[in-house]
Amino acid sequence: MEVRSHCPINFTLEHFGDKWSFLIIRDLMFKGKRHYNEFLEAGEKVSTSVLGDRLKKLEEMGIISKGKDSVKKSRIRYSLTQKGINLLPILLEMIVWGGVNDELTESPKEFMELAINNRDALLESLRENLVKDHL
Amino acid sequence: MEVRSHCPINFTLEHFGDKWSFLIIRDLMFKGKRHYNEFLEAGEKVSTSVLGDRLKKLEEMGIISKGKDSVKKSRIRYSLTQKGINLLPILLEMIVWGGVNDELTESPKEFMELAINNRDALLESLRENLVKDHL
Repeated sequence: MEVRSHCPINFTLEHFGDKWSFLIIRDLMFKGKRHYNEFLEAGEKVSTSVLGDRLKKLEEMGIISKGKDSVKKSRIRYSLTQKGINLLPILLEMIVWGGVNDELTESPKEFMELAINNRDALLESLRENLVKDHL
Repeated sequence: MEVRSHCPINFTLEHFGDKWSFLIIRDLMFKGKRHYNEFLEAGEKVSTSVLGDRLKKLEEMGIISKGKDSVKKSRIRYSLTQKGINLLPILLEMIVWGGVNDELTESPKEFMELAINNRDALLESLRENLVKDHL
């Protein structure tokens, strides 16, 4: 992928393009969603064309991978790759900033407290679950 | 500001809209840039209309503030507010992910090592400098 500069922040941002990719990763990371229809139901009302495009791009970049559902074989199941799981600290810091600055935040208080005061342990436990899910 | 959902990740993402805002914050945070012309010179070649728009929006959201330059009074000097400085952990984690995943990264090795192995101390020292600059 060609990037405008190899500044690491720019590189990361260009790998996502926009917020929709980040929201798909959020759904995989924190909401246990694994299927197309579940992503579509997100509160932010993504359109089918944007969702399809971002899933394809995330797969091409090696952030997510496709597999078959263990229950219904014809259904596609998405999961985060190791490269995708490594985005966890970025999203966790977005939760902290958003939770602190939004009076109407949906973020549970207990989660915020963990994220602020017990970050390393929280990251470790979230990471462990995602790695297990990907295997 | 109206947002599509009060999920903290969505809230954070909607406050920036796109990568250009993040790149201005990067310039203020890590590159010591303070003036319009310096932002314009960034390697990613932002256009004047996008730059003007994002500076205005960041100011409206209370992420950056405008002041007069101490040397040349007619020149506007931008700095990060406390709310803006609090974005530091997000950008630091973007540096880590981008630096690790980009073979051609511009990110200095020593900085990456500090960010990975000595995160808290690095955050503290960066934060201190930014707070001093804002006062």
